[in-house]
Amino acid sequence: MADLYQQIVLASRPTGAPVAENFRLESGQMPVPADGEVLVRARYLSLDPYMRGRMSTSKSYARPVEIGEPMEGETVAEVVESRHPDYRPGNLVQARSGWRTHAAISVEGLRRIDPALAPITTVLGVLGMPGFTAYSGMKVIGQPKPGETVVVAAASGPVGSLVGQLARLAGARVVGIAGGAEKCAYVRDVLAFDAVVDHRSEGLAEKLAKACPNGIDVYFENVGGPIWQAVLPLLNRFARVPVCGVIAHYNGAGGGERDQLPITMLEIVRRSLLVRGFINVEFVEEHYDAFLREIGPRVRSGDISYREDIVDGLEKAPEAFIGMLAGRNFGKALVRLS
Amino acid sequence: MADLYQQIVLASRPTGAPVAENFRLESGQMPVPADGEVLVRARYLSLDPYMRGRMSTSKSYARPVEIGEPMEGETVAEVVESRHPDYRPGNLVQARSGWRTHAAISVEGLRRIDPALAPITTVLGVLGMPGFTAYSGMKVIGQPKPGETVVVAAASGPVGSLVGQLARLAGARVVGIAGGAEKCAYVRDVLAFDAVVDHRSEGLAEKLAKACPNGIDVYFENVGGPIWQAVLPLLNRFARVPVCGVIAHYNGAGGGERDQLPITMLEIVRRSLLVRGFINVEFVEEHYDAFLREIGPRVRSGDISYREDIVDGLEKAPEAFIGMLAGRNFGKALVRLS
Repeated sequence: MADLYQQIVLASRPTGAPVAENFRLESGQMPVPADGEVLVRARYLSLDPYMRGRMSTSKSYARPVEIGEPMEGETVAEVVESRHPDYRPGNLVQARSGWRTHAAISVEGLRRIDPALAPITTVLGVLGMPGFTAYSGMKVIGQPKPGETVVVAAASGPVGSLVGQLARLAGARVVGIAGGAEKCAYVRDVLAFDAVVDHRSEGLAEKLAKACPNGIDVYFENVGGPIWQAVLPLLNRFARVPVCGVIAHYNGAGGGERDQLPITMLEIVRRSLLVRGFINVEFVEEHYDAFLREIGPRVRSGDISYREDIVDGLEKAPEAFIGMLAGRNFGKALVRLS
Repeated sequence: MADLYQQIVLASRPTGAPVAENFRLESGQMPVPADGEVLVRARYLSLDPYMRGRMSTSKSYARPVEIGEPMEGETVAEVVESRHPDYRPGNLVQARSGWRTHAAISVEGLRRIDPALAPITTVLGVLGMPGFTAYSGMKVIGQPKPGETVVVAAASGPVGSLVGQLARLAGARVVGIAGGAEKCAYVRDVLAFDAVVDHRSEGLAEKLAKACPNGIDVYFENVGGPIWQAVLPLLNRFARVPVCGVIAHYNGAGGGERDQLPITMLEIVRRSLLVRGFINVEFVEEHYDAFLREIGPRVRSGDISYREDIVDGLEKAPEAFIGMLAGRNFGKALVRLS
């Protein structure tokens, strides 16, 4: 066993879309846990859109990653050495150990994983923060009712796929938006949405209108950009719009040539719309236990489907992350570490 | 007594800001009430921003006024002839009788006015729909807490002035935005806001930031346009934004050259903002009685101040309305009918 570990650090801050040169793979001496800490070996690293925000210095709810620091991220990890009485080698944990093969970390913030409950990777996806983002956004803000129409973009992704399945379970009509024939087929056939619209094909607005003959009551916003322009005219009075992210704008504000804010504000007034941004952590205390209780069994039973997009090797993380921001992943983006 | 009445009809639909030619003063035979109706003579006509929406055909919660039809509007009126047992000549009522000197109307939708409770014009302002817009928007959506900072634009207007006074009563710090020295002095000295910023002076963003050293927790949006750009960077995490109107955009979507929607959506996510459009009628059933009970006595006692901007003569209504949309009114815009 080599005494080396690897990590990927932020080499420079991106302007616009991140590129490979913004990351640097480094090797170093294996870290040594202090008293009360454990040494963990990461088995899976989660890649999530919020990480783009951490690469920049703009005002946010979280401090940015500094240049030269390892990228932040959540992992499924195994304890290899313990200096804490509650943990022993072999224990599986969910950790915020970052883009690193190993880390010596405090046990605070670790969460144990029971591999008998569900495949261990689900704690990073459908039964983890992406799943809880979908669950809490729908529970607290979206609140779909039977017969209402729910629309979600990035419908094959880890958040969107659960949003739609929860809406279906609530008795709502669910329309997904996804990019490309393969993802659309998955959304329609496996996730069993009532309809799906391919945002890469022509005429998104018309197709979406056709798929939503009774308008839209809940639009779960996780992308932003041109899809919002197609959704806005279809929103019904008192429609709810939980906003967990606008991935289309993470690489720079972007936007079209016309100022789209006035028409959005006008429609917000005319139709008494509710638009509420959120981050899942604000709802953890009140809703996380119920989430696991309600969704866990449905994932185990296969009632709720999910899909993962796994690449092998820490060195592949930057490319997979860049691809995810461009929508090239098909399912929850994960890196398997050997 | 002449057998003629007068009305102002919509002569043509405006493109952009309404002009005098969009209205036409007409005379006609005095209407005759049918069985169950009353003939009313209007004493005061209320001019409100929502009327701009009724002049256009764009999708809204209410149907537009048709070309040749009298403009819609709320009045304080006196019954001059009654064919309903509950009403007799001399009764004062609040009616939706439009831009007309007289109208024969059904008694449904009439509301009696008790002139002993408060000056009769208040039913069109601080104790009417503008006041209830302020009250319900703050009660249901804004929910200011002691020590929080509340910002409201059009602060000397019928909605803004009550928003600020309610926030002050709730123990919040209140910052008003108004146009011109005279309005600002009124907001500061009479309404007793903690600070006021003149949006016609240079450096709105800097001045507003200085007036809100702890950021903004509630922004009551009733104007839109450049003020939103000054407010957005100051909004605190979990800030609430009740939106009752965006008068800056009623004469056409307008907006700057840059698309401001992406940055707004990004901030909505980053700071878990709540943006909720509303129209006061959606809250009438649940909150109107409490509004009258809570605010009525405070208006009578002088605890809550209000201001009216009255012009004389129905023929002046178009000019006064056009001026109001441009912010030239100073207080609740009313037309007194002789």
